Amino acid sequence: MNQEYPSALLERAVKEFTKLPGIGRKTATRLVLHLLKKGEDEVASFSESIIKLKREAKYCSVCHSISDTDICPICVNPTRDHSIICVVENIQDVMAVENTMQFRGVYHVLGGVISPMDGVSPSDLNIESLITRVTSGDVKEIILALSSTMEGDTTNFYIYRKLSQFDVKLSVIARGISVGDELEYADEVTLGSSIINRTPFTGKTY
Amino acid sequence: MNQEYPSALLERAVKEFTKLPGIGRKTATRLVLHLLKKGEDEVASFSESIIKLKREAKYCSVCHSISDTDICPICVNPTRDHSIICVVENIQDVMAVENTMQFRGVYHVLGGVISPMDGVSPSDLNIESLITRVTSGDVKEIILALSSTMEGDTTNFYIYRKLSQFDVKLSVIARGISVGDELEYADEVTLGSSIINRTPFTGKTY
Repeated sequence: MNQEYPSALLERAVKEFTKLPGIGRKTATRLVLHLLKKGEDEVASFSESIIKLKREAKYCSVCHSISDTDICPICVNPTRDHSIICVVENIQDVMAVENTMQFRGVYHVLGGVISPMDGVSPSDLNIESLITRVTSGDVKEIILALSSTMEGDTTNFYIYRKLSQFDVKLSVIARGISVGDELEYADEVTLGSSIINRTPFTGKTY
Repeated sequence: MNQEYPSALLERAVKEFTKLPGIGRKTATRLVLHLLKKGEDEVASFSESIIKLKREAKYCSVCHSISDTDICPICVNPTRDHSIICVVENIQDVMAVENTMQFRGVYHVLGGVISPMDGVSPSDLNIESLITRVTSGDVKEIILALSSTMEGDTTNFYIYRKLSQFDVKLSVIARGISVGDELEYADEVTLGSSIINRTPFTGKTY
């Protein structure tokens, strides 16, 4: 649909919004016209927040997560267990694992997974720095928490080969049926994995 | 869910995005992190487009639609029929009617509909200026193209009463079943209206 905009300024703003993932022309128009109704202060605050983030946000020099400081709050925290590193794909995954409140170790953000189809090779990811962390520090365990996809599995295997020569325990997050899921709808690989990796029943529910 | 962000800058940008309609915390995080991956130029361009729109966009002094100039391209266009005014709620509706390519008249943007529940009274809308247009120019017809809601109907009636003393034809867009709709799923009011307002069959389909 060739939508004609009554204003070039409007059209430009809409075009910028449509570059965002999952935002089409209609949604973009709605968002932009919503902003237009707001006060100039609010629009400035919106616009500034993005510019400021882009200009000032740093990436933690240890784990590569986003941070306002050179080393992120998790990596500087002495109460966290620095001998366990959870390897994740991106910053969202750090937040997702943090939200579970089940992990008190530290993180390592790869910045993606190996995907020849998308032109992502191991050298594009923060794998070298992970190996440096393993060799230099007293890391006891690496937990691989990547997506359960072909790319995630490939990346897991690549890291496994790179780290097999070091004295470090390598584990992968459990594959099993989701909490709340009904058994009959689970796929057989997941269900099979959940049986093989069954855990002692302690009487606790979730 | 109390999501802890590893960066205050990130959190601020996400908060700004969640103020937009239909954008939750998860989507906002995804959009912001997408922008963060882009180059500084692109982020600046995004941010600037909104600021520029807010600062420089004008509203047409005739029809109140958005415009880069004092009078919008439609209102200055001599090939449009200035004797027919289509009354709509907002700028999106101008674009929607324009996209149909079935209307060669001009517009009048009310800026909303009368809604006592939301505290919108007739004085908050561009109704006075519509009456001025009717009294000062040679307007022959006003087409009311508001939403088919209680608020839209109220606004239609209010405008009808205000304009009844003037020699101007007042019409309302047809209510009927949508193109592609199946009859059995149409509500009875719509179906009834489509029967009452039936049109001569010319052999054309859509």
